[in-house]
Amino acid sequence: MNNIRTDLALEAKELWEEGAKETTTLQGVKAKEYQCEGFVCEEVRILDERGEHALKKPVGTYITVNLEGLLTGEEGIFQRAIQVMAKELSQLLQPKQTQGLVLVAGLGNRAITPDALGPKVHDYTLVTRHLVEHMPEQFGGFRPVISLATEVLGTTGIESGELVQAVCEKVKPSCVIAVDALAARSLERLCKTVQLCDTGITPGSGVGNHRIGLNERSLGVPVISIGVPTVVEARTLAIDLLHGQTHPLLEQGEGLFVTPKEIDRQVNEFAKVIGYGIGMALHQGVCLSDLEYLLG
Amino acid sequence: MNNIRTDLALEAKELWEEGAKETTTLQGVKAKEYQCEGFVCEEVRILDERGEHALKKPVGTYITVNLEGLLTGEEGIFQRAIQVMAKELSQLLQPKQTQGLVLVAGLGNRAITPDALGPKVHDYTLVTRHLVEHMPEQFGGFRPVISLATEVLGTTGIESGELVQAVCEKVKPSCVIAVDALAARSLERLCKTVQLCDTGITPGSGVGNHRIGLNERSLGVPVISIGVPTVVEARTLAIDLLHGQTHPLLEQGEGLFVTPKEIDRQVNEFAKVIGYGIGMALHQGVCLSDLEYLLG
Amino acid sequence: MNNIRTDLALEAKELWEEGAKETTTLQGVKAKEYQCEGFVCEEVRILDERGEHALKKPVGTYITVNLEGLLTGEEGIFQRAIQVMAKELSQLLQPKQTQGLVLVAGLGNRAITPDALGPKVHDYTLVTRHLVEHMPEQFGGFRPVISLATEVLGTTGIESGELVQAVCEKVKPSCVIAVDALAARSLERLCKTVQLCDTGITPGSGVGNHRIGLNERSLGVPVISIGVPTVVEARTLAIDLLHGQTHPLLEQGEGLFVTPKEIDRQVNEFAKVIGYGIGMALHQGVCLSDLEYLLG
Amino acid sequence: MNNIRTDLALEAKELWEEGAKETTTLQGVKAKEYQCEGFVCEEVRILDERGEHALKKPVGTYITVNLEGLLTGEEGIFQRAIQVMAKELSQLLQPKQTQGLVLVAGLGNRAITPDALGPKVHDYTLVTRHLVEHMPEQFGGFRPVISLATEVLGTTGIESGELVQAVCEKVKPSCVIAVDALAARSLERLCKTVQLCDTGITPGSGVGNHRIGLNERSLGVPVISIGVPTVVEARTLAIDLLHGQTHPLLEQGEGLFVTPKEIDRQVNEFAKVIGYGIGMALHQGVCLSDLEYLLG
Repeated sequence: MNNIRTDLALEAKELWEEGAKETTTLQGVKAKEYQCEGFVCEEVRILDERGEHALKKPVGTYITVNLEGLLTGEEGIFQRAIQVMAKELSQLLQPKQTQGLVLVAGLGNRAITPDALGPKVHDYTLVTRHLVEHMPEQFGGFRPVISLATEVLGTTGIESGELVQAVCEKVKPSCVIAVDALAARSLERLCKTVQLCDTGITPGSGVGNHRIGLNERSLGVPVISIGVPTVVEARTLAIDLLHGQTHPLLEQGEGLFVTPKEIDRQVNEFAKVIGYGIGMALHQGVCLSDLEYLLG
Repeated sequence: MNNIRTDLALEAKELWEEGAKETTTLQGVKAKEYQCEGFVCEEVRILDERGEHALKKPVGTYITVNLEGLLTGEEGIFQRAIQVMAKELSQLLQPKQTQGLVLVAGLGNRAITPDALGPKVHDYTLVTRHLVEHMPEQFGGFRPVISLATEVLGTTGIESGELVQAVCEKVKPSCVIAVDALAARSLERLCKTVQLCDTGITPGSGVGNHRIGLNERSLGVPVISIGVPTVVEARTLAIDLLHGQTHPLLEQGEGLFVTPKEIDRQVNEFAKVIGYGIGMALHQGVCLSDLEYLLG
Repeated sequence: MNNIRTDLALEAKELWEEGAKETTTLQGVKAKEYQCEGFVCEEVRILDERGEHALKKPVGTYITVNLEGLLTGEEGIFQRAIQVMAKELSQLLQPKQTQGLVLVAGLGNRAITPDALGPKVHDYTLVTRHLVEHMPEQFGGFRPVISLATEVLGTTGIESGELVQAVCEKVKPSCVIAVDALAARSLERLCKTVQLCDTGITPGSGVGNHRIGLNERSLGVPVISIGVPTVVEARTLAIDLLHGQTHPLLEQGEGLFVTPKEIDRQVNEFAKVIGYGIGMALHQGVCLSDLEYLLG
Repeated sequence: MNNIRTDLALEAKELWEEGAKETTTLQGVKAKEYQCEGFVCEEVRILDERGEHALKKPVGTYITVNLEGLLTGEEGIFQRAIQVMAKELSQLLQPKQTQGLVLVAGLGNRAITPDALGPKVHDYTLVTRHLVEHMPEQFGGFRPVISLATEVLGTTGIESGELVQAVCEKVKPSCVIAVDALAARSLERLCKTVQLCDTGITPGSGVGNHRIGLNERSLGVPVISIGVPTVVEARTLAIDLLHGQTHPLLEQGEGLFVTPKEIDRQVNEFAKVIGYGIGMALHQGVCLSDLEYLLG
């Protein structure tokens, strides 16, 4: 498992199971599968250090929503996808904070298509802090929201994590929602699933490999993270295909990624679903056509 | 003068002179004209409260560089324009801070062409803090620089000024360089001049009408601002043409701007000149072809 | 009137009326006003040479649809705007050709925001020729459509008109729909109206000033043109304000345009309305949500 | 070899050699290696039907220029890369046509990053037909050039090949230069080499899989094609790694591509090198800084 890269807890669990002896059971982890709005959801809960150690992810709840079919244009599927995002996100927010300012942070590099998920979710996020503050009567039903596209170290000179810290210290949000493109292990999940979790962003994760984390420890408030696997590293694919054999091609695989041909369009669709889903989860009484008008 | 909008100190001075009785002299203001790298530069220094009151700009030094001809592609003019920017900027920085971290803030809305100057200068700014910190031997000659495109209230929910404050409190720069698109009064200066000044950004200025200022008072460090007039408000043009007569068209002029046809290309060229000029002013020993390679 | 630039027949008629003596009547022109889908429409029919001479536009029917309010996001206004486009376009197509291949030509320069209407309508046009030909059973209800963004002489070396001629000679469409950004005289109509006419594109018209026409004479098939005034030339505005006085500012006005601040967004919204309206007019049984899914 | 996809003649030859018995020699093909401007070039000439059959490419000359290192920013490498492009292209053009109108056709889909090479070369191509025709004294040293971005069937309803045919019939060029993104077999060549050949574009080739060819037979004039491998199909990579074993992952690989992480930037750099190289090959006395000013 060591060399196989995945940012999905669900895949980390599968990898553990592939490597485990038949008789072993995975301690410190609970999993369940359920349906929501017609989509299959899988929840992996890492309960303690044993689970952390086995899956190499921090203690917390990881939900994978399977949105396969989103791009078929099936009647109503886009609306259902937004609903499932809103419901699952509300679920994760509930035990934390249901009031107060929310900071949405879109991580990643807009200029690299598979890494542009975060900046594009930022584009589709309804920001309201300025409205709620200046026109409280009209915007009573809205939760105050601010949103940033943090860009990347190479274009700003400042780590995404440090920039979000700076803003948190200034505006004191009740929680942060961080959105980022992920690396998966399996071609099956590429641009087909969304992972939501309550542990934030772990250093080393994401298409852009964040150097510092965005989590409750670094930011001082709960951090929900939302991600879509948009790449499989070519190295990971090769290791998987070769079942551990070495191969000269593996050396060349550095910096190469497998993506779907229509990655530009797919990233955009997922960004809309996530951005509108965040809007539906945070604001009472806002409807989808309002979001489409304001952000479309 | 009251209704005529200009962000240029030079034009504010001209307006004052047009309105003044012949015998009056403008107290508290000094002006001079000189050449630099073959371009005409005009310096207006507002010395005290009399000057502030007359020109409605804070005490400080305002330099207007006339870059007319930049887009003719005349041999070497692009290089000379970068040199004049670097020299004039160095001049303004000198009495302030010649060492320590610099924060470049690109203000404005990338989605509105004449307001995109700031974000585009951000794209052409060489950021180095992460390099200087992690590889001090290789990047000894570089000054640490970070750069942000602050976007606008409608897309972030947070004022540009507040975002820059947050980052200043976190990273403690020695000075800030804020770049913004300006409104001019005169068609002659539209996309033809650059104003540099040591007073920062005044509330109410800029194409996007900043609500809070970015200046030494709000940020705690010296703020140099650099701007290019990219619009004349249609109302301003009309008032000017009508010499104070009223006209029903004036009511309709709200939100209408006069811009050059090739505004997209012109904003891009000015952004390059300013971004590269900042790079040449801040980093010893960096040459233009390095900047072009890294940022082009 | 000579120096006042307008591509709208309705404005040409108003200008004639302003200049005319009270007792004169405009011969060879008929006008009427009506409502469609809640929008005010004005039809100007130029009947003969007298009308041509007076309004400096060729004989034909010019419909101006007033879409003021489109960008308010009023419930259902976007859908109604598409319906009015589809109805008025069907009206103009009817006497011509109701079957056979249609060529949609999006004229203009994508890189200059107010001139990008044509290329953006091309983006929102459902093309079907390849589907109708290869899968006739599934696409029985669709009319074959091809679409081109012709770009401009400076980027292709070939006139838009010549390119469309080449394609017409090859694919022999039954009619052409040409879409282009227009210059208006009045700030009131800027980004608020759509003109449809059955005379095609006249040389010298459009934001980009087409050198050769796209009309039945040059292309050999009927040409419907659709345009939105996205600019008022600064010169035109000045002449209007000054009632014929000369002014040094008029000389500088060359290449300067008045546009709304949010021109980027407005051009995009009008392009959607026109592109989807074309789709609704040409294809039986296609619904708006299909177009939004396929092109959105 | 059957299932391994490559658009490079050089790789087709390598594949044949891998599959061949030791004693067999490849008949009807000649190959040689040489240096030009410091880059390694490999020429494969398919001489007759035996070569065609073995390599599944038409009779003609295929030159692969190895531009590895282009993105390192090594002093002068960008200029040398443009020179090698200009020289090799001149070589291929020489026996054909050295005078008369040239049509540059940028094939592919601008919205899909690895397929955007053609449209971007179009952006970097200096077009001159309109200048040479209208100002023959000033533009005496220039060869008349027009350029099109043909887009793709899904956005126009018309095959690239058919569109280029239409324009060729209209403007009668002396030759066509078609530029397209290619699929390679090997990760080593991905975004590192350029293939130039004198056989045009073969149906089924390219990232977008052209349905009809662009060659002397279909267009009636010589066609030079220039391509860069920007993708390896995930299926091809897997087949290669597995040496012919089957694997369930192979079924999922449809529509998945391996690309470098910085594909956006790399496509842009190659497009500049090719576009400027075409300009240097076609126009006497134009220098690189002119091209950079006019197209940069």
